Amino acid sequence: MPEVSRTDLHRLQSRLAALATIGASEGGGITRLALGDADREARQLVLGLMRELELEIRVDRVGNVFGIRPGIEEGPVVMMGSHLDTVRDGGPLDGSYGVLAGLEVLRTLDDAGIRTRRPLAVAVFTNEEGLRYAPDMMGSLVFAGGLDLDQALATVGEDGSVFGRELERIGFAGPHAPGSIPVHRYLELHVEQGPVLDDEHAVIGIVEGVQGISWTEILIEGEANHAGTTPLRRRRDAGYAAACVARYVRDLAQLEIGGDQLATCGVLELEPGAVNVVPARARLTVDLRNSRDDELKLAERFLDDFLSTLEYDEQVRTSTRRLARTEPVAFDADLVGLVEEVVTELDYPCRRMISGAGHDAQWMARVCPSAMIFVPSLGGVSHSPREATNPEHLEAGANVLLEAVLRAAD
Amino acid sequence: MPEVSRTDLHRLQSRLAALATIGASEGGGITRLALGDADREARQLVLGLMRELELEIRVDRVGNVFGIRPGIEEGPVVMMGSHLDTVRDGGPLDGSYGVLAGLEVLRTLDDAGIRTRRPLAVAVFTNEEGLRYAPDMMGSLVFAGGLDLDQALATVGEDGSVFGRELERIGFAGPHAPGSIPVHRYLELHVEQGPVLDDEHAVIGIVEGVQGISWTEILIEGEANHAGTTPLRRRRDAGYAAACVARYVRDLAQLEIGGDQLATCGVLELEPGAVNVVPARARLTVDLRNSRDDELKLAERFLDDFLSTLEYDEQVRTSTRRLARTEPVAFDADLVGLVEEVVTELDYPCRRMISGAGHDAQWMARVCPSAMIFVPSLGGVSHSPREATNPEHLEAGANVLLEAVLRAAD
Repeated sequence: MPEVSRTDLHRLQSRLAALATIGASEGGGITRLALGDADREARQLVLGLMRELELEIRVDRVGNVFGIRPGIEEGPVVMMGSHLDTVRDGGPLDGSYGVLAGLEVLRTLDDAGIRTRRPLAVAVFTNEEGLRYAPDMMGSLVFAGGLDLDQALATVGEDGSVFGRELERIGFAGPHAPGSIPVHRYLELHVEQGPVLDDEHAVIGIVEGVQGISWTEILIEGEANHAGTTPLRRRRDAGYAAACVARYVRDLAQLEIGGDQLATCGVLELEPGAVNVVPARARLTVDLRNSRDDELKLAERFLDDFLSTLEYDEQVRTSTRRLARTEPVAFDADLVGLVEEVVTELDYPCRRMISGAGHDAQWMARVCPSAMIFVPSLGGVSHSPREATNPEHLEAGANVLLEAVLRAAD
Repeated sequence: MPEVSRTDLHRLQSRLAALATIGASEGGGITRLALGDADREARQLVLGLMRELELEIRVDRVGNVFGIRPGIEEGPVVMMGSHLDTVRDGGPLDGSYGVLAGLEVLRTLDDAGIRTRRPLAVAVFTNEEGLRYAPDMMGSLVFAGGLDLDQALATVGEDGSVFGRELERIGFAGPHAPGSIPVHRYLELHVEQGPVLDDEHAVIGIVEGVQGISWTEILIEGEANHAGTTPLRRRRDAGYAAACVARYVRDLAQLEIGGDQLATCGVLELEPGAVNVVPARARLTVDLRNSRDDELKLAERFLDDFLSTLEYDEQVRTSTRRLARTEPVAFDADLVGLVEEVVTELDYPCRRMISGAGHDAQWMARVCPSAMIFVPSLGGVSHSPREATNPEHLEAGANVLLEAVLRAAD
């Protein structure tokens, strides 16, 4: 294995700072919704960096951008990457870090005069966040063949815009068929977006997989009644029933399933929503996550059972709609092992972990052996202007990526 | 006691039907917000009926309308009454029934050639519902000296209008000082607006008092977090905490206080309100009612205690604001006894009960011995286009009112 210089933290930081000005608001948050003007500007900045590195640039029909660095031999690429779009008022690292660290790896190799056996590539995937167009991780999903291209292009956004037209408008409707680049390995470097590494003073998270996600929308129909004249036993209180569900899912996760089962009720709305009226209708959502699909299925069944009991006990009607369902993804054991080997040699405090958030890597895992590298999020904060990572951890992550890519490419 | 004819159901029904056309929408609901054009039209219809009965009409400065029928002697009046304003999409009986039944009583006495010893009166109180201008029961509250007239006139409505100006606009800013009519007894006939009489196949509710009401707005502040990356033990979940409160108040009412304690959570809102974000903030309301003030105070204290425990257990911050608080009102025992005597003689199935809703009678009880008579609401429905009462029950209520007024006036 060749001996190379470490990545240049100062250079990486200055590029992160430059990218963070695009879509920045006065309050410090960054908003670059997919295919908006800020997304275009961010993509153009990255294209400029790719040109500086004399990469072969390929843009596919769903707008994914690839910068390819030739290897000594031709063949499938070792790909790094992530995304440039953000949530509303997001932070400077989610997605951006993975893309710019990938480019920093290539620059470091250039500076050291190293050419790898296999070609390398840095990918920018389209619409990872999914705020403007559903589903999220759309670019990698189409790349992996999980969503039809034409269907993606026809997607109508929350603002009424059409994905395909916006893609053309910003000049990123490329000529290449998504998925037409053969990939040998995919490695994504990302901030954890949770508190585990920060809590445990670990520097690198070796990501073994991504949790499965089950989103359920629950509608509860009861009966509006006067809060002062309707005896409790006579009520069909949709609000009370909804509160029971929201409270239950915590017990479901902690007591009934246990392990790493998560459950969240993020939406709960009541109608008519007046102080003195027993709610007639409730809408709530339940977000269930688990790295084991058997347990996730069990959690879904327990939730269904609870709703059946509730219908009987509270004389309400319930209906459910599955808003999203992804199976847990296990990353390639060999590639995860390679990352762990690198982290151990570089002597960074680390832990193996499961990603709680979805990432492009989970779709790339359908195409080729894939894995992820996490660095700590200070306080576990992400999707927020307060999203931050210690500079030495940003550097550690980039160094692990560099070493892992070198080994995967030789 | 003179023997009189029963009230005329057909006449009462036709007048209810005529009044119900004012403010009626195509969907069948009636909307006559206080001091709006429909309220004016309804008041004019009633003024016309009062003139037919040759009543002495007095309008006071808060817009309360009184039609007075002289007695054999001068002195304080025996007053019947209720209100003509409605909620949005309300029904044909709430308020209207009490006013028109009062006029029907006077018409019946005219037809029978009966003059009572004391004068009689029918009152139309302004803004009972309180939808457009807070507080509700404003006309009777000002009449009873519980709210300053000038303050009432200066009230700015939910639509930005000023109460006093709207009162002048519709021509009901009368010259008389509110409260300037001496009242001997006040009797209000009303639909129950709850299911108790209908459930028990009772025809008349003998109302002993009105529940005390305590409205609390609760704000809960936690921390927004990613639903997939934040371990359950690390969360400060304002939504979960709110659900715990909404679920607890049912136990508070049924198990901890018991008796006739009621508790309702009608409003529950979460922020930011996304499927995959742990809620940072929650706003909810708790409506507590009890006919005993000591128990109502205890319920308020239990709720406060629960919030303190919740702050500790869930690491959230809570703050509360009292939106409304009225003490329970006990009606005059002698007048309630008189009503019961009449109902027993007329042989209607009946029960003593507490009013769960607020009524003008609770403010009139500050001025003079007062009581109320309830008739069943079909299915307990009120504040709805589906509000209805069996015709024979409407007739029974008017007959009880007639007999009770005759006894109170002699």
